[in-house]
Amino acid sequence: RINKQRLWDSLMEMGDIGGTEGGGCARLVGTDLDKQARDLFTAWCEAAGATVTFDKFGNMFARRPGKNNDLPAVCTGSHLDTQPTGGKFDGVFGVLAGVEVLRTLHENNIETPTPVEVSVWTNEEGSRFQPAMQGSGVYVGRFDLEEELNKTDVNGIRLGDELQRIGYIGEEEPGSRNMGAFFEAHIEQGPILEDEDKTIGVVRLGQGIRWYNVVIKGRAQHSGTTPMHLRKDSMVAAALITAEVEKIAHRHANGLGTVGFMQVYPNSRNVIPGSINFGVDLRNPDAAVLATMNDELEAFCSALAAERDLEISVDNYWYFSPVEFRLSADVEKAAKELGYSHMDIYAGAGHDACYMSDIMPAGMIFTPCEKGISHNPAERTSAEQCEAGTNVLLHAMLSASER
Amino acid sequence: RINKQRLWDSLMEMGDIGGTEGGGCARLVGTDLDKQARDLFTAWCEAAGATVTFDKFGNMFARRPGKNNDLPAVCTGSHLDTQPTGGKFDGVFGVLAGVEVLRTLHENNIETPTPVEVSVWTNEEGSRFQPAMQGSGVYVGRFDLEEELNKTDVNGIRLGDELQRIGYIGEEEPGSRNMGAFFEAHIEQGPILEDEDKTIGVVRLGQGIRWYNVVIKGRAQHSGTTPMHLRKDSMVAAALITAEVEKIAHRHANGLGTVGFMQVYPNSRNVIPGSINFGVDLRNPDAAVLATMNDELEAFCSALAAERDLEISVDNYWYFSPVEFRLSADVEKAAKELGYSHMDIYAGAGHDACYMSDIMPAGMIFTPCEKGISHNPAERTSAEQCEAGTNVLLHAMLSASER
Ligand SMILES: NC(=O)NCCC(=O)O
Ligand SMILES: NC(=O)NCCC(=O)O
Repeated sequence: RINKQRLWDSLMEMGDIGGTEGGGCARLVGTDLDKQARDLFTAWCEAAGATVTFDKFGNMFARRPGKNNDLPAVCTGSHLDTQPTGGKFDGVFGVLAGVEVLRTLHENNIETPTPVEVSVWTNEEGSRFQPAMQGSGVYVGRFDLEEELNKTDVNGIRLGDELQRIGYIGEEEPGSRNMGAFFEAHIEQGPILEDEDKTIGVVRLGQGIRWYNVVIKGRAQHSGTTPMHLRKDSMVAAALITAEVEKIAHRHANGLGTVGFMQVYPNSRNVIPGSINFGVDLRNPDAAVLATMNDELEAFCSALAAERDLEISVDNYWYFSPVEFRLSADVEKAAKELGYSHMDIYAGAGHDACYMSDIMPAGMIFTPCEKGISHNPAERTSAEQCEAGTNVLLHAMLSASER
Repeated sequence: RINKQRLWDSLMEMGDIGGTEGGGCARLVGTDLDKQARDLFTAWCEAAGATVTFDKFGNMFARRPGKNNDLPAVCTGSHLDTQPTGGKFDGVFGVLAGVEVLRTLHENNIETPTPVEVSVWTNEEGSRFQPAMQGSGVYVGRFDLEEELNKTDVNGIRLGDELQRIGYIGEEEPGSRNMGAFFEAHIEQGPILEDEDKTIGVVRLGQGIRWYNVVIKGRAQHSGTTPMHLRKDSMVAAALITAEVEKIAHRHANGLGTVGFMQVYPNSRNVIPGSINFGVDLRNPDAAVLATMNDELEAFCSALAAERDLEISVDNYWYFSPVEFRLSADVEKAAKELGYSHMDIYAGAGHDACYMSDIMPAGMIFTPCEKGISHNPAERTSAEQCEAGTNVLLHAMLSASER
């Protein structure tokens, strides 16, 4: 069994790096705060007898040797980056649950049959740089290393330069490790476990995600002198698309649709915006339904472009297809043995484990979070809930190592 | 008659201060570029025998003495600040037309019965700080000096500090000068003169303007895990209001409605925006119709707030009522005498002359601009059109001075 208080204290200490009012955390990837968090992770893992390395994309690996070090490692991990107005648990809980597993094995002098690893994946959030789950995506070969290092934030700063600056670009080729199984513990980020009063979610599936960059080009003109019928107003067009994204989501069972990011040019109160650039996020657990949602968005945008004589480009630059988790039996068995109430669930968010399952069997453990609120400083969970999730993680990893 | 080439050369030289690709200009109020433009204005006016002073709000006055210097001055002026993606003529033409009047009087050794003044008003555009026509509004007592100096831009920088920094806060109390009449020459910024093939617009009226700050507070949540029915999405609400602003404008004769400015928090692609802050600009030449448009906007926003359980605050922080210009007879007479084709017109944009007419008779002269495009780097006019407007200005000022 893991140590509840030690885990909680570490969560709080890590949460102070970039801690914000209201109990939140703002620790964007590639910043000085990201460096501090990575350094602290390294110190903790080394104190628990593990060796820490990182690869050419800044993905970190804390390795604890086992009986036979030629066997593929049993791994866990998640991310230390947060949203600009994020909480203390999204991602961080999964990493520190891994650290707590290392500490528990270390203090009990347990020799596992295989090596055990805890990883930290670069830019899971996809907030400062796109897409999300970038580090694990590079690791499994979904994305090209150089292309992703060249991604820039809204200020034109390159991710590769930021990782270099904070000292987290290593020598190791992403994808080159000997890993045999991957587990990830994560807060649910949704309201279902709390509603159903269950301690553990056995994650069967990760839903499909499509991210778009929509660029509308109209004509910048004076708001006071340009008659309505002579306008090419990119703002009104963006508004109509945003309203339609909500309608598309409502039209389909389990559909979700969000516009979370928007940049307006020149963004002046008396100028009809000449161009706008915004993000659309569509999700569905069923790949076919998600494809229909995609078609509806594209059809709406082309009709609108024609109707209003605007240029509208809809770039679906990220498609993440639904994933089935092959190790959910291990998760379920551990929850049962430990006597935690549990239920099957699917993941609404994308997670590093989803990409890892491309190249090895993977499993995910969800724990409840208050009112389902996440990506918000008010994200909350309890020490008991974190303890339960970490005990399930420890036991699932041990079963896999023994297999 | 004024000197066409000299006027055009000055327009081009001034336009180079902050000149942008595509022939535009970006010279926001209170910046180093603003200082350069003000310094150049001072040098030109002094060379033409005028004395330049500025008041506590940075409004500048170039004074050329007349026969009787106790008589109220006959004045003209406009602004040197531009939009972030503005043109070379909006405002600047009116100031340099005034400089050209000074030069013409100077080189011909004309002694006018009254003094003549050319003013530069601080922050007419209302882009970096709100509202628009701030300097002339402070001058006539519509706004409080201290309150306006305390206004901050999106980065929290105070206007008063910026004016201090560039050396343009003087000793003189705004509103304390002896001014008897005010004329302003300006490009039309709309398509009507070009469409009707007229050289001069005799501006009879300035239309009414209402500016709003709308703040929507929803709940920041994860785009992938929050079911549609549990969302408080401030972005969708902003979109519905934006679409409604367009509908309100279409519902009323001569109605205009624009959302040009929007800030989204936290502005991340997988976060349902927790709050949004945007500007609405409603205009109508008829005050009663504009009041109805206002009521419709407010009613729509309160119904939406109730329906979607959001906080929506609609702050109509600036109301500019329609203005009749009392000196349009002078403008019409000058255009007739000089043989320029002309027509009556109303001003869609707010202008410094609109505020000046609070405290003295005022008149405006419009000149055509290509395709009516303004607040855009593609704003264009010709040397001949500028010449005609400036000749009308000179003659109208001389008539007023002789009266
Ligand atoms: N766990 C999490 O918040 N991941 C971010 C990627 C997504 O938007 O689903
Ligand atoms: N002339 C001009 O563009 N004025 C700015 C104020 C307005 O928005 O009308």
